[in-house]
Order: sequence, then C-alpha cells, then structure tokens
Amino acid sequence: MYDGTNFSGFERQPNRRTIEGVLTQKVNVMAKLPEPPIIIYGSGRTDAGVHAVAQVAHFDFPFDLSAEAIYRGLNSMLPLDMEITKVEKVSNDFHARYDVSGKKYFYRMYLGEFQNPFKRNYTGHWKFPIDMEKVNHALADLVGEHDFSSFVASGSTARSNIRTIYSASAKLDQAENEVHLEFYGNGFLYNMVRIMVGVVAEIGSGMRPESDVLRLFEVKDRDQARRTMPASGLYLKRVFYEGDDPEHPTKLPKR
Amino acid sequence: MYDGTNFSGFERQPNRRTIEGVLTQKVNVMAKLPEPPIIIYGSGRTDAGVHAVAQVAHFDFPFDLSAEAIYRGLNSMLPLDMEITKVEKVSNDFHARYDVSGKKYFYRMYLGEFQNPFKRNYTGHWKFPIDMEKVNHALADLVGEHDFSSFVASGSTARSNIRTIYSASAKLDQAENEVHLEFYGNGFLYNMVRIMVGVVAEIGSGMRPESDVLRLFEVKDRDQARRTMPASGLYLKRVFYEGDDPEHPTKLPKR
Repeated sequence: MYDGTNFSGFERQPNRRTIEGVLTQKVNVMAKLPEPPIIIYGSGRTDAGVHAVAQVAHFDFPFDLSAEAIYRGLNSMLPLDMEITKVEKVSNDFHARYDVSGKKYFYRMYLGEFQNPFKRNYTGHWKFPIDMEKVNHALADLVGEHDFSSFVASGSTARSNIRTIYSASAKLDQAENEVHLEFYGNGFLYNMVRIMVGVVAEIGSGMRPESDVLRLFEVKDRDQARRTMPASGLYLKRVFYEGDDPEHPTKLPKR
Repeated sequence: MYDGTNFSGFERQPNRRTIEGVLTQKVNVMAKLPEPPIIIYGSGRTDAGVHAVAQVAHFDFPFDLSAEAIYRGLNSMLPLDMEITKVEKVSNDFHARYDVSGKKYFYRMYLGEFQNPFKRNYTGHWKFPIDMEKVNHALADLVGEHDFSSFVASGSTARSNIRTIYSASAKLDQAENEVHLEFYGNGFLYNMVRIMVGVVAEIGSGMRPESDVLRLFEVKDRDQARRTMPASGLYLKRVFYEGDDPEHPTKLPKR
C-alpha cells in the first residue's frame, strides 16, 4: 500500500524517489548483501501520483526469514507513505508480473466547485454537473474485449492495444460529493484508466454524445480522447493471479 | 478550511508559508491597494501541521464587493490546500478573535500497528491496545472549569490557565480503526488539546491510573503530562461566537 503523492511512480529510476527504488533499497539493507542486489518484481507500474491499496511484488530473499519477520522488518524501515500489508512465501515459479490474470482500479472523482484541501492529492476534481445514467451508459460500452488504441497515452510499450474489461461501475457518494468508478480487466494500457475516466466524465456531463465510446473504439485515435484525468484520483485496488477469480482465470500473453 | 500539512501554522511569519500569510497576500492582491495592507484577524492560531475545517477570520475590505465575489475571487487565487468555505459581511464591531465564545476541536487517532500511508498526515498514530471505558472516564474528568497548567506547553502567552471544557467525548470507529475525540470549551491553551489527548490515550492504554487527570490538575506541572500528540491528527472543527450557543454564550475576558 502506498500514497503515490510524493513518488515519481513505481518504476525504479536514477535520482528519483520511486516505490520500486525505495523497496529495493530496504530489502537489500535487510539482506545485508554485497552485489548483486536483490531485484524487486512488481505486478506492473503505477505513474507518479497514483496510489495503491494492493500492489503486489515478489523478490528472492537469500536467507530463510519468516514471512512475519520480513513483514515487520520492512515496515519498520519503510517511509510513512509506504506500508507492506502482507508478506507471503510463494513457490519459486511465481512471478508477480507475468502471472497477473487481472487488475482492479478505483477512481475517486470529487464534484465540489473548488477542490477540497483534504482531497487534493486523493481525488480527481470534476466541477461539472454529471448525469449518472449517462456515466453508466458509457461504462457499459467500455466492458468487453476491445481495441483501446484511443485510450492509450503515447509512450506505451504494449505490443497490442486489445484488452478485456470484465466490469466497469460507478456510484455517486452523496456524503463525500464524489463519484467512485471501478474498472476490472485483464490488463490496462499506459494511462488507460485515467483516459477512460475522462471520456466517461465528459459523456456524463454532456460534452460528448452518450455513445461516443463506441466511436472512439472505431477511430483508434488517442487525440480524440483528449483528457487524461489526474493521477491523484487513481488507486490500484487489487491484482489478480491465476486462480484468484475462477470466472476470469486466464492471463495475458507475456509482453 | 485548510490542510495544515504544508503550512508552518496559522500565524504570519517572515519567510514561512502560513495560513494568515497566504490569505493576507491574496486579500491584498484582490484589493490592489498600496500600503497599508489589509490585516487578517483569525479566531486564533493553529500550529504547524494542524488542520481546520472551520477556521474563522475577518478583515476590513476597502471596496463594496459582494460576499459572493470575495468568495469566488479568493478561492480562485488560493492554493489547493486552502479553501474559503463561506464569506459573510459582518457588523463593524465584530472581531474574529475577541468575540469567540467557544471552540470545538477534533482529534483522529489511528490504532493500526503501523501508520497507514494515507493517514499519516491526517491522524495521530497510537499503536497500543486502548480501553474506551478508561478513555471516557478520563474525558469526563477533563470536563468543567479547571486550571490546565499541567496541559499547556511552554511558550504559552496566556495570562491565566483556567479554562472551561463544556464537553469531551470519544468514539471508536471500527471501520477506520480510529478513535475520534472531540473537545468543546471556552478556550484552549497552547498545545492543550494534543497534551490532553496524550494523557487520555495513556490512561486508556493503562500507562496511567484511571484518575490521573485529577492528579494532574492538582500538581499543575506540565512535565508530568509529557506526551504531546502529533499535530497531524488535530482539526479545528468549529469556532463559536456570542449567540451561536445559547447554553454557553459567554466569552473569555480579552487576553
């Protein structure tokens, strides 16, 4: 679990504070080993400012420490904006990235006229009136196997833009004055969730025709999706591995 | 309303980012006036890292702008961690500080074994088992008019340490794994709430006898209260002015 606000994303980079970088450093401190360092394999990247309540990573630890000892040891060394929620020993052939069968993302969209000071780093701000019926129509169109070329940011390294969204839902939280969106799929392209949320929000607020998602699937042109919603509202909610969800056991071919 | 995390408290200080400093600068920009600048009078200070959901301040604006125009103008200029929730025109003799008849503070204490990354700036962390009956016993002892000399940090400029607490309550939020404490009184000394929460938490966790509050009132010795809970868990929840609460209309003598 991490608050992505003060990280330059997940992936290790020289001179940048990243999740992978901090975790790699702590794990190697714990192992007190000379090179070669222990390598951390995450389920995938998250961008700068994106949060995770359930990111998954694996590494090969050279000593026989109990999961409990690793859990306590790491948490006592990690900065306050990162926390290990669970440590499990896995079989040697488990791979945190290649064995992923699905991911669930959550997006918090705050609807106030002005961004709430306490929510600025934890929601995306959407100040336009929004019609949940239109939102749900747009989400329904996103579900299924599609070519998401209109929903991927430049810089994506994926070989294919075909992905399957198993479910997409939204609910209005009146008390918080937020819309909460959830996407569950077999994989997501670079910025795909944030671009989808932008399109869905624009449809919900009448800036796009209600069926514009179908047109965007056709045109395969990212420029027509335009808006990428802020990273601050995005949370990696769950990573699924083969067997976790009998309904959707398959994993993507290695990319 | 402000997220105190990135502020050096409320009070204006040279070369420090403070609530009063930022607000003063924006109000004067809005007035486009040469010196003397418009002065902001807050209901009172909050320390670095302390939050406010309902701080109150007044200033004399030289032009006849509508409350609505000032509300929109300021919010469009303010940084994202500050928001004006309401603007009202008041009579010339209203004073945001001297007319205060009471204040309500809220404290969020997170009980997890390790601090939650998303709560690190918004709660105080308390990792010891806590008995809510003992907590409520301690809170009941705090209610009433007392000499709070054991509960004030050095550096207080108050002439008297006598204050009246009208109500003090706590509830366990199981879902959030937090204890929420609320204090309503006619005034609070420097760090008083954070010191009280520390004593209450220590009593709740059996580190102090259940009636230790009464002893601390007697000894009038701040060193015996020791712990000051983190600013991150503290919220100024409401400021009361004469008439707001018929049960407690009186205000403190000017200090």
